[in-house]
Amino acid sequence: MTVRNMTASEAAARVANDLAARRDEILECIAAFVRIPSISAISPTSPAMHQALDFLRDRIAGSDLGNVQLLSAGSGHPTFYADWLGAPGAPTIMIYGHYDVQPAHRDDGWLSDPFMPEIRDDRIYGRGTSDVKGSTIIAFETVLAWLRVADGCPVNVKLFIEGEEEIGSPSLPTIVQQNRGLLAADAVLSADGGRALPGFPSLYVGARGLASLELTLTTASSDLHSGRFGGATRNAIAEMARLVSSLHHADGSIAVAGFEDDMTPISPDDIKQATAFPFDAAEHYAGFHGVEGGDPARTPWERMTLYPTIEPNGIWGGYTGLGVKTVIPAMAHAKLTMRLVAGQDPARARARVETHLRALLPEGVRLEVSHGGDARAFSLRLDHPLLLAAEEVVTLRRGRPPLRVRSGGTVPFTQIFQEVLGIDTLMFGLATGDENAHAPNEFFRLEALDEGLATWPALLAKVGQLSAEAF
Amino acid sequence: MTVRNMTASEAAARVANDLAARRDEILECIAAFVRIPSISAISPTSPAMHQALDFLRDRIAGSDLGNVQLLSAGSGHPTFYADWLGAPGAPTIMIYGHYDVQPAHRDDGWLSDPFMPEIRDDRIYGRGTSDVKGSTIIAFETVLAWLRVADGCPVNVKLFIEGEEEIGSPSLPTIVQQNRGLLAADAVLSADGGRALPGFPSLYVGARGLASLELTLTTASSDLHSGRFGGATRNAIAEMARLVSSLHHADGSIAVAGFEDDMTPISPDDIKQATAFPFDAAEHYAGFHGVEGGDPARTPWERMTLYPTIEPNGIWGGYTGLGVKTVIPAMAHAKLTMRLVAGQDPARARARVETHLRALLPEGVRLEVSHGGDARAFSLRLDHPLLLAAEEVVTLRRGRPPLRVRSGGTVPFTQIFQEVLGIDTLMFGLATGDENAHAPNEFFRLEALDEGLATWPALLAKVGQLSAEAF
Repeated sequence: MTVRNMTASEAAARVANDLAARRDEILECIAAFVRIPSISAISPTSPAMHQALDFLRDRIAGSDLGNVQLLSAGSGHPTFYADWLGAPGAPTIMIYGHYDVQPAHRDDGWLSDPFMPEIRDDRIYGRGTSDVKGSTIIAFETVLAWLRVADGCPVNVKLFIEGEEEIGSPSLPTIVQQNRGLLAADAVLSADGGRALPGFPSLYVGARGLASLELTLTTASSDLHSGRFGGATRNAIAEMARLVSSLHHADGSIAVAGFEDDMTPISPDDIKQATAFPFDAAEHYAGFHGVEGGDPARTPWERMTLYPTIEPNGIWGGYTGLGVKTVIPAMAHAKLTMRLVAGQDPARARARVETHLRALLPEGVRLEVSHGGDARAFSLRLDHPLLLAAEEVVTLRRGRPPLRVRSGGTVPFTQIFQEVLGIDTLMFGLATGDENAHAPNEFFRLEALDEGLATWPALLAKVGQLSAEAF
Repeated sequence: MTVRNMTASEAAARVANDLAARRDEILECIAAFVRIPSISAISPTSPAMHQALDFLRDRIAGSDLGNVQLLSAGSGHPTFYADWLGAPGAPTIMIYGHYDVQPAHRDDGWLSDPFMPEIRDDRIYGRGTSDVKGSTIIAFETVLAWLRVADGCPVNVKLFIEGEEEIGSPSLPTIVQQNRGLLAADAVLSADGGRALPGFPSLYVGARGLASLELTLTTASSDLHSGRFGGATRNAIAEMARLVSSLHHADGSIAVAGFEDDMTPISPDDIKQATAFPFDAAEHYAGFHGVEGGDPARTPWERMTLYPTIEPNGIWGGYTGLGVKTVIPAMAHAKLTMRLVAGQDPARARARVETHLRALLPEGVRLEVSHGGDARAFSLRLDHPLLLAAEEVVTLRRGRPPLRVRSGGTVPFTQIFQEVLGIDTLMFGLATGDENAHAPNEFFRLEALDEGLATWPALLAKVGQLSAEAF
């Protein structure tokens, strides 16, 4: 769809030029957003969360975006919603971002105050710069520039800016469910999730799912004296160690029978794209003094993106203080999580692990198993119009087509939008995984800001040329 | 040796009659000793430790015991020493006991104040009644009664009442080393360590040794995100679980190559005595809702007394709080102790385990190993004159010979007396392992008091008939 008398590409160029010209203003806008310490882990009464919502509201005041609403599940931090639906016949795109951030304390190793952003070495440092206030502002400003410069957007836009992404999105399923009509759209364009590497064109086409298990193993009604009882009694730590170690072969590959049976076969294109990914294993492991593990028949990059995992995340039991205590512990605990790929049902994956563990349990040893929330893997179909449009835009900008990459992480919101609204998500954020998100000295590259201010206007123009029926 | 005009057995009978007649007075003496909360875990300035020393000094005041000394290593709680050396030519026996007790808090589940002893169901309840103030007073009162009633003891006596047994006897090696002349004796008779079962005649002829290992395993310089890194990186908990689980076969028997190679072969008599021990496995395991483990080719009682063990005592690593944290932990820890039997050198046993573990370590995974104090196993030779004398005394009293039992626990002081003074220890205490030592509601059986007041005088008489050369 074209706006007024301009062609779509003329309009996109004008919008991009406007954004480029106002780059310092937009950078200051990101900085102002980062100065608000909108940490969702703090209770809902945190004034900073209200400040962040006011910031978003003020930012669109006077624009053609309207219908501003705070969507809430009754408790928790609300989602900021606004829309512009002035492009009848054009696709309707929900733009996803989030205004909440992870906690940050200056004395955790920050070189500058996490909530007083600083620009150093062509990067802006501060909590939320990378995750995900920078990319959220890019999306916001792109829509505002289209409305102002081109007098309208090439697509209908529904802004959906969540406030609980960093605490696991507890309200999101309810909010989406309760606002199905309001949120109806053809697809989601996400400012969260973006580039696999800095300076290398890529687009995410999937993310792994997640399932968790917590194990409590009991061998006796109380800890026992290792002198009086030792040698003839099951030890809870020894039994737990046997269970946990049974999950992997010595090389680190998964040893749970059938665990990978449900996987959707990995496509030749996935293998091709993974092989083409410029992953430097030596540099990778040197970066954290780590040691390679996992099925040696697969490359590390394949293992981290195309295959499922089982990881023990915590273990504890018995005496953990100073010195020696000659005790046979009666109880031991472990936490496990699995990253799942397409085809794997979280409940079924959990059941496979539990069955595997119970088969190893000596008679009389008790094992309790509980679990947290699940998320299925997400896959964007490779002919999805949003993906094809984004590939065109990136190819034009970078002179080469972006690699399709599957993320090793988990992006639960894509799954919720798919299940409740039946729509797919393209992640088009500008952050990369090396920017210390969730860690001290989080930063966002100014190169990424420029990239976003160029590609977001072009992508909206490209999608605007599609009919809603294309989705 | 006989005292004055009485035969040894006449004298012993008179002493035993005197003690039996004064049973209530002696029971009150135990109660008074228990009322002093002489907890060695509290700093050396604790007034109760001084009260306990004053109590012992007052108890022997006016008797022929003299040369009272407080033996100290410079810091810590001193050992109370006194002697009577009026039986030239007769053996010199060191009598070992301890005046310190474990901590106790009423609200840990005590039915009565731990330091206000109560008599219920023919038992005296209170901290230290069983471990080991009851048996220490029996030994004390026996010596005092011999001196008073028979005007002399059948043996030369050196009382050695330690103040740090419950905190691992840190000063004991130094105290014994620095007082070798003063402490010279033919053998040690211990009020600590005694009966394997209530109401069943037995004598301990050995105890297992102890060695410890603490493991710290590192796979990376920091914890990693399980989404970004999972599937291609070693996980410290998974690696630690593999190490710990490698120590035992699935049935619970030890899997460390060569671990039992250094064992002194188990004698036919040991097997015979272990087989004769009235051990009810079903009752044993039901008592703590426990599960049998260990080499099924050996009986549980054999495994607990004649064979070595390796037990994980504690394990920790990664996230152990509420909920789910998707982390690949970079570090994990475990504590291990071994119970050792005759022939096993603690340092060599530790080295065997460490070699076994390092052989399993993937290249690049780091393992640090540290250790605490060691103790060798203790064995009393089966023709030791103190043992033969005690067997005679018990046989006479009970109408059947006592079983020889090896304790699964560790009694470091026997080893120290053996190494520094070259003398053996017979444990002739009256406590049994089911009396809640180190736990709430510790008690001592009044039946055991009566038994001790009868057998201790007879044992001293019997040993007095030996020449010092017999040792």
